[in-house]
Amino acid sequence: MKINADRLWNTHKILASFTEPERPYTRRSFTPLYKEARAWLEKAFKEIGLVVKYDAAGNLTGLYEGETNQIVAVGSHTDTVPAGGRFDGVSGVLSFLEVARCMRENNYVPKKSILGIDFLAEEPSEFGLSCIGSRLATGNFNDDMLSLRHHKTNQSLLDVVDEFGGNTAALKQGKSTFDVEKMDAYFELHIEQGPILEKKELDVGLVTCICSVTRYDFTIFGRADHAGNTPMDMRADAVVSAAKMIDMISKIAHESLDSGIFFTATVGNMSVYPNASNVIAKRVNFTLDIRSEDNNLVAKNLAKIFDGVSEIEQETNTKIEYKKISQDEPALSDEKLLSILENNAKKLDLKYTRLLSGAGHDAAYMCTKMPMAMIFIPCKGGRSHLPEESTTKTQLENGANLLLESLITCTS
Amino acid sequence: MKINADRLWNTHKILASFTEPERPYTRRSFTPLYKEARAWLEKAFKEIGLVVKYDAAGNLTGLYEGETNQIVAVGSHTDTVPAGGRFDGVSGVLSFLEVARCMRENNYVPKKSILGIDFLAEEPSEFGLSCIGSRLATGNFNDDMLSLRHHKTNQSLLDVVDEFGGNTAALKQGKSTFDVEKMDAYFELHIEQGPILEKKELDVGLVTCICSVTRYDFTIFGRADHAGNTPMDMRADAVVSAAKMIDMISKIAHESLDSGIFFTATVGNMSVYPNASNVIAKRVNFTLDIRSEDNNLVAKNLAKIFDGVSEIEQETNTKIEYKKISQDEPALSDEKLLSILENNAKKLDLKYTRLLSGAGHDAAYMCTKMPMAMIFIPCKGGRSHLPEESTTKTQLENGANLLLESLITCTS
Repeated sequence: MKINADRLWNTHKILASFTEPERPYTRRSFTPLYKEARAWLEKAFKEIGLVVKYDAAGNLTGLYEGETNQIVAVGSHTDTVPAGGRFDGVSGVLSFLEVARCMRENNYVPKKSILGIDFLAEEPSEFGLSCIGSRLATGNFNDDMLSLRHHKTNQSLLDVVDEFGGNTAALKQGKSTFDVEKMDAYFELHIEQGPILEKKELDVGLVTCICSVTRYDFTIFGRADHAGNTPMDMRADAVVSAAKMIDMISKIAHESLDSGIFFTATVGNMSVYPNASNVIAKRVNFTLDIRSEDNNLVAKNLAKIFDGVSEIEQETNTKIEYKKISQDEPALSDEKLLSILENNAKKLDLKYTRLLSGAGHDAAYMCTKMPMAMIFIPCKGGRSHLPEESTTKTQLENGANLLLESLITCTS
Repeated sequence: MKINADRLWNTHKILASFTEPERPYTRRSFTPLYKEARAWLEKAFKEIGLVVKYDAAGNLTGLYEGETNQIVAVGSHTDTVPAGGRFDGVSGVLSFLEVARCMRENNYVPKKSILGIDFLAEEPSEFGLSCIGSRLATGNFNDDMLSLRHHKTNQSLLDVVDEFGGNTAALKQGKSTFDVEKMDAYFELHIEQGPILEKKELDVGLVTCICSVTRYDFTIFGRADHAGNTPMDMRADAVVSAAKMIDMISKIAHESLDSGIFFTATVGNMSVYPNASNVIAKRVNFTLDIRSEDNNLVAKNLAKIFDGVSEIEQETNTKIEYKKISQDEPALSDEKLLSILENNAKKLDLKYTRLLSGAGHDAAYMCTKMPMAMIFIPCKGGRSHLPEESTTKTQLENGANLLLESLITCTS
């Protein structure tokens, strides 16, 4: 059994067409566009006889029924960052669709059922939180997260999840929305979003660990004064304070390069209020995004950052507040599943390596409830989260065939 | 003759009602709201028999006709910054309206006519330029300015000025849209936007010099990569580069405090693209706003800033581009007009001082074509460009009476 590479490529084109026309490729979670794309996917699942269901967390699932109640799960997501790409998340979901189509064409009846999952809102959404569907589905949430509000509309997270197929009243802290006792394994295929596979000319990467993601919201309070009539020594400038914070954070992260432990700290979004060139900024908000394979190093570096706050507050006459949005643990892949992937890669004559994921994935949350392993496929220049994000038809084909082969190993 | 303080206060309330309801007090230039407010003003001008006209630069003018063709001008503006106040600009325009009402009630027939001007778009608009009406009216513009485009709609400046009453086809480089040969004087009443009058418990300030305003647009180009999978030493992060630039600019401006020469440098607006917490920023734009009484110091400090660019480019692997938006000269008030104001302040028993304006005003452009003087009235805490901006009824009354008295001196 082999997947149909042209068909897989074609479904990528279809899903890419669900984009904000002015800003390809943008299909933000919790938008009408996102709903349309998922309706298309739901229809495609139904056409090959999958049992379609939304779970309580708003994840769209399609079940390829096997002979028993045991389940092997496969998933990823179909939302994008603003001005994102056509493969991140999408390739995982569409590889499952292609694998299921291929199995159905070949009248394959697995012993275990195969559950394909399109997780709700994997990318950081307007709620400032990522992996909403997989967090909620696996009980990895707390009251703070549930009380988050949409940055623009101020709607509550719970209301919006329900609007997108969920049933949040049924969510129970710590309980999964899936029947996890019956689930043996979770696989996720994803583009690498890094340069290693391309550089080493490899076909696939077998992920050994997904770095933890830690996010903090920073709010800096200054005083809005006239840019012309307020002498430099009488200001409380939130932009200058933010600049000093970001410079300090970047320096602390660079210092960790020597440790040999993977650590990144990024400020990728920032908003300035009132944001007029002749008004000293009253307030700046930004999110700090930290990734590492070692949460002890994260704690150490966060302590350094927080230590620097009071000096910057004093120097700039501003007030700096910060609040943890989320922090998870590094997620380790299952050695048995890794071996299955490795053996099948050899069987399919694919060049591979084991590697680490600096990016977070829904797999990291599924990993808290069942054995997990991920397949990475190369992407051009290691780049993602931008319109130029790309992978080739052959690279996709290789990854999807490895997924197909490994699902057969696990379910037959 | 004395102005009616209650009526003056009441017209402030009326004009304040033309605001974005969600974001008081916001009446941005080139919006339908701004057009509505000016229509109200036009009606008020007409009700007291002023001859109403829009000049080629889109400035709304009301002429109180005198016995001769000679003209004394008075003006300010009615647009606001985002989330601005109820007095900045507004008090100057409404003081003229009140003075004209008072003169009409007293059947005052001046020798010279009095021209009240509501200048178009004084605050930095969505074109990144301030004082559009007074620049265009006095020929203080160049082709770069005329080719500016609206940040959001991409409309050309010329089209928009025409839409707001102008006739830009008739603008001629260097020529004024006013009959400047017949104009003897320009007065402008404005809130101080600084703390001095309040601190010294004075009634009015007589402005000796308006600082020059210099604006540069900065664009920083980085590379949008995944925040998780891009090690710290492989990044081109536009946010980090911008942070280092802003920190450097602030330090250079602080160093000038020792010189005793007034100098400020402000970054009050900033936009990050794509502005997602898990994407390293590809681009940052910000505007640098510089005020000083000495353009030699401005040149010296700009050179220091530009010198620092290449080091930051190298350190952050980014490209930093900058472009001058505008630069003007410090504007000196006319000594004869200052004496008239001073004598009348004494006559009205007002406590006053001479002072400098760090804020730019339409007066700085009018000053290039005729003698100019400004009256400052105190504002609470010296603060402006924010909803809490305030001045008292008595402070307004004092300023408007000084304006009335001085217009009588100049026109009778």
